[in-house]
Amino acid sequence: MTFRGVIPPVVVPLTADGELDVVSYERHVNRLIDAGVDGLFILGSSGEVVFSTDERRRQVITETVRIVAGRTPILVGVIDTTTPRVIEQARVAQELGADAIVATAPFYAILGPKEIKRHFRLIKQAIDLPLFAYDIPVCVHVKLSPAMIIELAREGVLQGVKDSSGDDVSFRNLALMRTEEGLDLTLLTGHEVVVDGAYMSGADGSVPGLGNVEPKVYVEQWHAAQAGDWDRVRELQDYAARLMRITSVTTGEFGFAAGVGAFKTALMLLGVFDTNVMPEPVQALEGHNVEAVAGVLRQAGLLN
Amino acid sequence: MTFRGVIPPVVVPLTADGELDVVSYERHVNRLIDAGVDGLFILGSSGEVVFSTDERRRQVITETVRIVAGRTPILVGVIDTTTPRVIEQARVAQELGADAIVATAPFYAILGPKEIKRHFRLIKQAIDLPLFAYDIPVCVHVKLSPAMIIELAREGVLQGVKDSSGDDVSFRNLALMRTEEGLDLTLLTGHEVVVDGAYMSGADGSVPGLGNVEPKVYVEQWHAAQAGDWDRVRELQDYAARLMRITSVTTGEFGFAAGVGAFKTALMLLGVFDTNVMPEPVQALEGHNVEAVAGVLRQAGLLN
Amino acid sequence: MTFRGVIPPVVVPLTADGELDVVSYERHVNRLIDAGVDGLFILGSSGEVVFSTDERRRQVITETVRIVAGRTPILVGVIDTTTPRVIEQARVAQELGADAIVATAPFYAILGPKEIKRHFRLIKQAIDLPLFAYDIPVCVHVKLSPAMIIELAREGVLQGVKDSSGDDVSFRNLALMRTEEGLDLTLLTGHEVVVDGAYMSGADGSVPGLGNVEPKVYVEQWHAAQAGDWDRVRELQDYAARLMRITSVTTGEFGFAAGVGAFKTALMLLGVFDTNVMPEPVQALEGHNVEAVAGVLRQAGLLN
Amino acid sequence: MTFRGVIPPVVVPLTADGELDVVSYERHVNRLIDAGVDGLFILGSSGEVVFSTDERRRQVITETVRIVAGRTPILVGVIDTTTPRVIEQARVAQELGADAIVATAPFYAILGPKEIKRHFRLIKQAIDLPLFAYDIPVCVHVKLSPAMIIELAREGVLQGVKDSSGDDVSFRNLALMRTEEGLDLTLLTGHEVVVDGAYMSGADGSVPGLGNVEPKVYVEQWHAAQAGDWDRVRELQDYAARLMRITSVTTGEFGFAAGVGAFKTALMLLGVFDTNVMPEPVQALEGHNVEAVAGVLRQAGLLN
Repeated sequence: MTFRGVIPPVVVPLTADGELDVVSYERHVNRLIDAGVDGLFILGSSGEVVFSTDERRRQVITETVRIVAGRTPILVGVIDTTTPRVIEQARVAQELGADAIVATAPFYAILGPKEIKRHFRLIKQAIDLPLFAYDIPVCVHVKLSPAMIIELAREGVLQGVKDSSGDDVSFRNLALMRTEEGLDLTLLTGHEVVVDGAYMSGADGSVPGLGNVEPKVYVEQWHAAQAGDWDRVRELQDYAARLMRITSVTTGEFGFAAGVGAFKTALMLLGVFDTNVMPEPVQALEGHNVEAVAGVLRQAGLLN
Repeated sequence: MTFRGVIPPVVVPLTADGELDVVSYERHVNRLIDAGVDGLFILGSSGEVVFSTDERRRQVITETVRIVAGRTPILVGVIDTTTPRVIEQARVAQELGADAIVATAPFYAILGPKEIKRHFRLIKQAIDLPLFAYDIPVCVHVKLSPAMIIELAREGVLQGVKDSSGDDVSFRNLALMRTEEGLDLTLLTGHEVVVDGAYMSGADGSVPGLGNVEPKVYVEQWHAAQAGDWDRVRELQDYAARLMRITSVTTGEFGFAAGVGAFKTALMLLGVFDTNVMPEPVQALEGHNVEAVAGVLRQAGLLN
Repeated sequence: MTFRGVIPPVVVPLTADGELDVVSYERHVNRLIDAGVDGLFILGSSGEVVFSTDERRRQVITETVRIVAGRTPILVGVIDTTTPRVIEQARVAQELGADAIVATAPFYAILGPKEIKRHFRLIKQAIDLPLFAYDIPVCVHVKLSPAMIIELAREGVLQGVKDSSGDDVSFRNLALMRTEEGLDLTLLTGHEVVVDGAYMSGADGSVPGLGNVEPKVYVEQWHAAQAGDWDRVRELQDYAARLMRITSVTTGEFGFAAGVGAFKTALMLLGVFDTNVMPEPVQALEGHNVEAVAGVLRQAGLLN
Repeated sequence: MTFRGVIPPVVVPLTADGELDVVSYERHVNRLIDAGVDGLFILGSSGEVVFSTDERRRQVITETVRIVAGRTPILVGVIDTTTPRVIEQARVAQELGADAIVATAPFYAILGPKEIKRHFRLIKQAIDLPLFAYDIPVCVHVKLSPAMIIELAREGVLQGVKDSSGDDVSFRNLALMRTEEGLDLTLLTGHEVVVDGAYMSGADGSVPGLGNVEPKVYVEQWHAAQAGDWDRVRELQDYAARLMRITSVTTGEFGFAAGVGAFKTALMLLGVFDTNVMPEPVQALEGHNVEAVAGVLRQAGLLN
C-alpha cells in the first residue's frame, strides 16, 4: 500500500443538531473517490478531530471504513495532547481499520525535541501501521525540524510527513535530505495554494483541504506533475488558488471558522452536504458570507 | 463554599511503571491539608492533566475526593481542546465530586474571542458548579482579556480566574474592574514567585506549584497579607523565590520536564513521593540534576 | 550621582508642523521637576526616539540639558539597531551632557546572547558614563535574561536596568540575584500599572510613562514605599491604574498611537502641551478619542 | 529601466579593522555583473545595512555607483525605524545615484496597518524613484498583507516588492492579484532555496543571498524559467539548495552570524574577499566552521 498522490483531509457534514450526517458523508466520500483521489485523510484538523469526542472519532472511522470498502487507503489522525492519550487513539484507529496513523508533536505542555522524538517512537511501538508525522506549528506551536524527521525516518519510526508548516524552505531541505539518503519517507504537502512549488521541491503528493470542494483539479494536477507538464501544473494551481478565496472572502470570521466554514458552505451550495453546520463552539457561516462563498464558486464555474 | 487563599495545583506521584502511586498521593494530599491550604486544584497543568488518559483523570478525582473527605474544596481541571470534549470531562468531574471546574480557552484549533466566549457559556450550561477560567497563554496560545472575563462574570458564566498568564498589568486591570463592578469573581494567581505583587493587585489567593514542596510558606504569606503585614509577605516571597530555583538549577531540561520534574524530585527527596517518575514522553530528572535540586533544598533549610 | 526614585520617560511636544515645541517642552520639564521627580529619561520609546532624526535627537538633548540646568540627572536613550550606530549616538549624548546612557539589545538583525553581551561591552568601552540596559522585548523582540544582566553587572558593564519586559517573574529573580551578590545595579521598572509589585520585588525606582501626566502620584508612591507604607503605595497604584485608562479608552488605535497619543492628548488637555501632534507616520488622537481621554481625566479629578 | 531577473543582495567585505574593503568590493561587484545578474540590491539585510553608520551607507552607495558605472540597475535599501529617518536615508540614496529605493515597514515602535500605509506613501512623496516594499517579518515583526500591497500599488506608491516573508501562500496570492489587476508591480523573492516555486507562482525575479557566492546558477535558472524549461529550473534549484548548507553546517552560530557569516567565508575561500570579517557585534566564523563551509563548497565543485 502506498500513500502518494492526492489525499484530501476529509471535511465532515453535521446535522442541524450536531450529529454526524451519515448520508451526506457517504455522498461526499464517494464523490472524492469517484474524482480519483489516491487516499483519504480523516480526523485531521479540517476533519474537526479536536472538536470530536472519542465516540464521534470512532464513528467517523467506522463509517469511513464501511463506505470506502477498500477502494482507497485511509489515513487516520490521532490528534491529542501527549503520548499516553495519542496511543489510546492510535490503538482504536488501528482496530477500526486505519491504513496509516497521523500524529502531531505533543501540544499544550511545553516540551522539547528530546520529548518529541520519544513521543513518536513510543507511538510507533504501540501500533503496527505506517506512521506519519503531522507538522502543523500553527496548531501545536512547534516546528518539526528536517533533521529530526530524517533521524526518525532512518530509525523506521516515521514513514511519512504531512506538512502543514507553511515553511517551504524547510520542506525543500527535507525533500532533498530524504532523497540523498534514499529514505522511504512519503512527503505530502497540506498547502493547497502552492502545491506546484511543493511538487517542484519533490513532494509525493498533497493533502488539500480545498480538495474537498474540487478534488478533480488536484487529481489532474498530480497527473500533470507526474507527466512533467509543469505549465499545466501551474495553470491548475492558479485556478485552485482563485477558488481558495472562498476562505478569505467572508467578513467577521477567521481561522477554523473561515476556512472549514467555507469548505462546508461550498459543499452545501454544491449539493454534497445538507447543511454547513459547524462543531461547537464555532457557528456556521450565514447570510452575506454564504453569498460571498457562492460568488467565488460562480466565478470558478462551479455554480450557476 | 469559597475558593480564597492558598490552593496548590497538586502534583501527582507515579510508580516506576507509570501508574498512580496512591500511597504517596495520600501522604502528599494530607501533608498539604495539614499545612493549612484552603483548597486543592487537581488535574491542572502541573497535575499532568494533558498526560493523563480519561481513565487516569477519573482515578485522580476519585482518590482525591476519598482522601480529602470534605476537609477542603477540590477544584478540577477539565483541560481539553474544544467545547464538546471539555463538557464531557466537566460532567465526569461533577459526577465524581468536584467542587468547582477549571477550564481553559480552546486550543489547537484557531479560534477567536467569539468562539472563546461561547465555549465558556456552553460549559457553564452543562454543569451545576462554579466555573473558573484558566488563563494560561503559554499553553493555549491565547490570552483572555480582562474585558472578556468581566463580561462573562457579569453574565454569571465565570465565578473565578486562575491566572497563569504572566501578565501582571492585565491582572491589575482585571482586579480593578472586578472591584469597581462589585462582581463576585475570585482571582487566583498561579505565579509563585510574585504572589506578593498579585496580593497588592487584589488577588484573592494563589495557586502556587511550588506550594506542593513547601505549602506552609504560602499559607503563612496569605495570612500575613490578610493581616496587612506586607513586609512579612515580601520576606516570605523572597524565600519562596529562592526555593523556586529548584526549577532552574538543572541543566539540559526546560518547560514541564524542568518545572514539574523539579517539584517531583524535591518531593521525593523530602520523603513525600517514592519516585520522581514523570509521565511519557517526559523522563525523570537524574544524577547531577537530582543533586542540584537537593542543593537548593539544603540552602532553604528543608533538607539536611 | 544616583538614579533611584521616579524618573519619567519624557514625552515630547511637537508643533503643528512637526517641529519640537520648545516652549511647551520647557513647561513640561519644569512641571516634572517641580513635582519632585528624581531624574528624567529622555529619548526613550515614549520619547519618540525612533521617530526622531539624529538632528532632532541632538536638539532634544541640548534643550533638556539647558532647561534642567543640573537640577536632576538626565538619562539618554541611544536607541539604534546595532553597536556601531548605537556607539555614535552614545558619544553624541555624552558630549551634549547626558548623565547616563540607556541602550537596548540590537534589533532588526537576528543575533544571539553572544552578540548581545558583546554589544553592551563595546558600548560601555566607548563612553565614560553609567550604562543602563533597556529591556524591552516588545520592541526589540528579545528578552535579556537575569543571568546575562548579572554577568554584565559583575564586569562593570551595566550600572542599571530599565525593565519594560512585562515579565515580573524575571524581574523578581533579577532583583534577588542582584541583592544576593551585592551588586551596584539600579533596577527601574517601566510598568506604571504595577509599580507597587515591582517595589515589593526590590525595584529602586520607576520610569512611568503615565508620570508625564501625573508625576506627583508616582513621587508620593516612591516616598511611601521608602517609608514602608505599603497600603498607601497600593492605594496610589490603584489610582494610577485607573488613570492609565486614557491609553485604552480610545477606539481604532493601539500601540504607540494609543499610548503616547493619550499621554500627549492628556498633556494638551491639562494645558501643558499646545498640541497633541504625533510624529510621522502616526496621527494625533481626534474627536471622540480626545473626549474619551478627557473623560478619564475628569474621573481622576484632574480636569473640570 | 526594469528590475526583473536576478538581483543579488550584495554582501560587503570588510578589512581586518572593520573598514569597507574597497578592493575586494570592486572584485565582488564585477564578478556578479560578469555572471550576468540583472541588478544589484545594496544595503539590504545581508548587506549589513543595520550595522552600517550613515557614513558607511553613503560610502557603499558611492562606491557601488562608481564601480557599476551604469552597467546594471542599483536598488538601495533605506532601512530605518520610522518615516522621518527613512526619508532622510532615501533622499541621500537618490542623490548618490540609486535607481530604486527599498524600504521596510517601520520597526521597533508598535504600529498598525494605518501607519504602515502612511509610511510608504510619505516615503514615495519624498523621492522621485521607484519604491519597493521589503517584506521581511523576521526582522520587522510585521507581515505586509497582499491586500495592503495591492492597494499601495494601485495608488502608484509601490512599484515592487522584495519578499523575504517566507510565506509562499501569501506570495502566490499577491502574484495572482497583481496579474488579475494588471498592475505594474515587480515581485522578487528573497528565498534562495525555493526560487523555483516562486517562479511558478509568478515571481519576476529573485534576490538570492546565496547568489553572492554562486551567481551563475541563479542567472541560468532565471533564463531556464523564462524559456519554460522547468526541469532545469528545478535541477538548478536542488544544486543551490545543497550549496545553501554553508549556512547551516556551522555550529554555535545562528541568524545573521551563520548566514552572512557563511557567505563572507565562502567568498573568502573563493578568493573574492580578503577576509570574512563581520560587523560588530558579530564575529567572523573561525576554525572548524570555516572548514565546514569549505567542505560544502568542495562537494558543490566550487573548491578543490
